[in-house]
Amino acid sequence: MAEGRLPVVVDALGGDHAPAAVVAGARRAVDELGIPVVLVGPPELVGDTAGLELWPCSEVVAMDEDPGRAIRTKKDSSLVRAAEAVRDGRAAAMVSAGNTGATMAAALLRMGRIRGVARPAICTPIPRPGQAPRLLLDAGANAECSPVMLLQFAQMGAALAAVRYGLEDPAVGLLSIGEEPSKGSPLVKEAHGLLAGRSDLRFLGNVEGRDLLGGQSAADVVVTDGFTGNVVLKALEGALRFLSGAVLEAFGADEEAKAAAGVLLPRLAPLVAELDPDNTGGAVLLGVRGVCVISHGSSSDQAILSAIRVAADAADRQLVQRIGQLVAGDQGAEELADALREGPAPLAGR
Amino acid sequence: MAEGRLPVVVDALGGDHAPAAVVAGARRAVDELGIPVVLVGPPELVGDTAGLELWPCSEVVAMDEDPGRAIRTKKDSSLVRAAEAVRDGRAAAMVSAGNTGATMAAALLRMGRIRGVARPAICTPIPRPGQAPRLLLDAGANAECSPVMLLQFAQMGAALAAVRYGLEDPAVGLLSIGEEPSKGSPLVKEAHGLLAGRSDLRFLGNVEGRDLLGGQSAADVVVTDGFTGNVVLKALEGALRFLSGAVLEAFGADEEAKAAAGVLLPRLAPLVAELDPDNTGGAVLLGVRGVCVISHGSSSDQAILSAIRVAADAADRQLVQRIGQLVAGDQGAEELADALREGPAPLAGR
Repeated sequence: MAEGRLPVVVDALGGDHAPAAVVAGARRAVDELGIPVVLVGPPELVGDTAGLELWPCSEVVAMDEDPGRAIRTKKDSSLVRAAEAVRDGRAAAMVSAGNTGATMAAALLRMGRIRGVARPAICTPIPRPGQAPRLLLDAGANAECSPVMLLQFAQMGAALAAVRYGLEDPAVGLLSIGEEPSKGSPLVKEAHGLLAGRSDLRFLGNVEGRDLLGGQSAADVVVTDGFTGNVVLKALEGALRFLSGAVLEAFGADEEAKAAAGVLLPRLAPLVAELDPDNTGGAVLLGVRGVCVISHGSSSDQAILSAIRVAADAADRQLVQRIGQLVAGDQGAEELADALREGPAPLAGR
Repeated sequence: MAEGRLPVVVDALGGDHAPAAVVAGARRAVDELGIPVVLVGPPELVGDTAGLELWPCSEVVAMDEDPGRAIRTKKDSSLVRAAEAVRDGRAAAMVSAGNTGATMAAALLRMGRIRGVARPAICTPIPRPGQAPRLLLDAGANAECSPVMLLQFAQMGAALAAVRYGLEDPAVGLLSIGEEPSKGSPLVKEAHGLLAGRSDLRFLGNVEGRDLLGGQSAADVVVTDGFTGNVVLKALEGALRFLSGAVLEAFGADEEAKAAAGVLLPRLAPLVAELDPDNTGGAVLLGVRGVCVISHGSSSDQAILSAIRVAADAADRQLVQRIGQLVAGDQGAEELADALREGPAPLAGR
C-alpha cells in the first residue's frame, strides 16, 4: 500500500463473478493505476487474494437477500465492515458489486447522510460516445420523491460531474414528457420551479426520454425520481442487450456473414467499448458521508477496476465535502425542513 | 368505397410528411387491403387526393399547437371533423399522425369516454420479434394516475391484445422496479393489490424495464402511469435511433466496410423490419367511444397504411364494445366512484 494514502476497500464477495473477478480487478487497480486496495470478506470464501491485504469478516449478504434485514442482522458482513472502514477513516472509499439495496443500506446506516441531504440517490453514468457520460439520478434509491429531493439530486449530480469528469459548470436537465415547463407530473412541475430559481445550477429545463442515450440534449446531468430512473435505465440496458444479441446472431448466420462480420466488428469495437458498462465505472451513491461505488451485479474484473478508479478519484477530489457545500450551504430553510420531515429513506425492501 | 362498410377517416394534414405520405398511405390501404378510406382536410392544402374522397374543412391543428386550446377554438379542423365523423356513425374509425395531444383532446371531447372508464390511455406496441408486439399503456395521456386507472389500463390493454392480435387471454405485467409485490411506488403497490385480486385478468405481477424490449418476460400487456410510459418509450426510440445510426456509420466507414455491409444488411433486414415503428401500426387511444389511432409524427405512407389497418380491425372487431364490457361490467362501484371523482383528464398542455 502506498504510504499515507488510504486504501479503497472492496467487497470481495459482491457480484455474480465474485470472488475471482473482484480479486482480479482489485489486483489490476493496484498494478495498473497504483491505487491502494484492501479486500474485505470471509477468508475461507475469498481464497487466493493475489497478494492483496484482506480484512477478515464472517458474513456475506446474498444478492437476493432483503437489504434492510440483512444489514440489521449481519453486522459482521463484508458490506457492513466496508462501510464502517470508510466511516472510521480506515478507507478512502468502498466498492461493491453485490446486493445494491444492501450496499445502500450499509452505507446509509453506517456512514450517515451528509448534513442537509434529505435522501441519498444512486447516480448512474449513461454512455455518451465522444464525450463524458451523462449522469442520471436517482437510478433507484427512492421510489417516491419530493421536489426538494430532485433539486438536491441536481446539486449532487453536478458535484459528481465536476469531480469525476472535470465539468465545473455542468448542464442539468429535468426528465419529463415534454420540453415546456407546463409538461409533466405535479412533482416535475414543482421541481422545475425550484431548479429554475437557482443561480448555482445551469438548468436547461425539461429533457425527454430520447435525450438519455443519443439525442441532441446538452444535459450532462439528468434528474428524475428513483422509480422512473430505475425503469428507464433497465429498459435501456435490456434494449442494448437484446439488440447486440440480435446483431451478433445475424453476424454469425453463415460462413459468408462471418467473413463480413470479421471486417465490420473491428470498426464497431469503439462503439461497443463506449457502451460497455464495464468501462464507465459503476454507479455512485450520493448523499452519504463517504464515497460508495456500486458496480453492477455481473461485473467483470474490468468493471471492478473502473469502479475502484472512480472511487479513488471521488475520494481524492473530495466529493463528499463538495456535496456538503452545495446542498447544506444555501438550502432554503423551509424547503429543507419539509424534506427532512419526511424522515429517513425506507431502504428496506427495495 | 365498398358498399355498406363505413370508411376509416384519415386526417390528411397530420404528420411531418403530410399530406403526401398520408394520401399515399391511404391510397395503398384502399388498393392493397380493400379498406374504404376518406380523407379530411382543407382542399387547397391537401391538393391531389389520388382519387380518394375528401371531406372538406377549413382549419388545421399544427404539430406544436396547444392541444386544449386548438380543439376548443378550431371547430372546423380536420381533427375535430374526423372525431365527429366517428361519433356520428359516418366513419368506423379515425387515424391521425398529427399533434398527439390535440388528437386525444378531439377524440375525448367529441366521442366522450366509454361508460365506467376513468381516463383514456394511449396504448403503444413495442416490437417483440417473432411474436405479436407487447402493448404498453399508458404511453403519455395521463401524467398522474390512480391505482384504479392502472387496473383499467390492464383491462383496456387486454381488450386491444385480443382484438388486434387474437390473444384472448393475454398476460398482463405491472411495470415496477423489482419483481416482488413489495417493490415500487405507493401507486404501483396499490395497483398490484387490485390487479392480483382479479379473476378476469391473467396478471403476472411486476415486470421491470428490461422486460419491455427484449427480455424474458411473458407479458403481452404492460401497464404503467403515463409519465413513466412516455419517458421509457421515448428512451427506447432514442436508443434505437442512436444505435442504428452508429452502426450504419461504421458500415459506411470505407470501401471494405461497405462491401461487408452489403453482405450483412440483408441478414439484418428482418430485424430492422420488425423494429420499424412504421410496420406496427401506431398507438391506439383506448377508453374513448370510438376507434382512434395515433400514428407517429414522422409517419411514412407505410406507417399510415399500418395505422389504417389497425383502425379498421379494431372497429370490425368491436374494440369499444369489448372495453365497455370489461371495464363497466364488473368494476367495483366504490373504486369507480373514486376514480370518476377525479374529474376529466387535464389534456390541455400535454
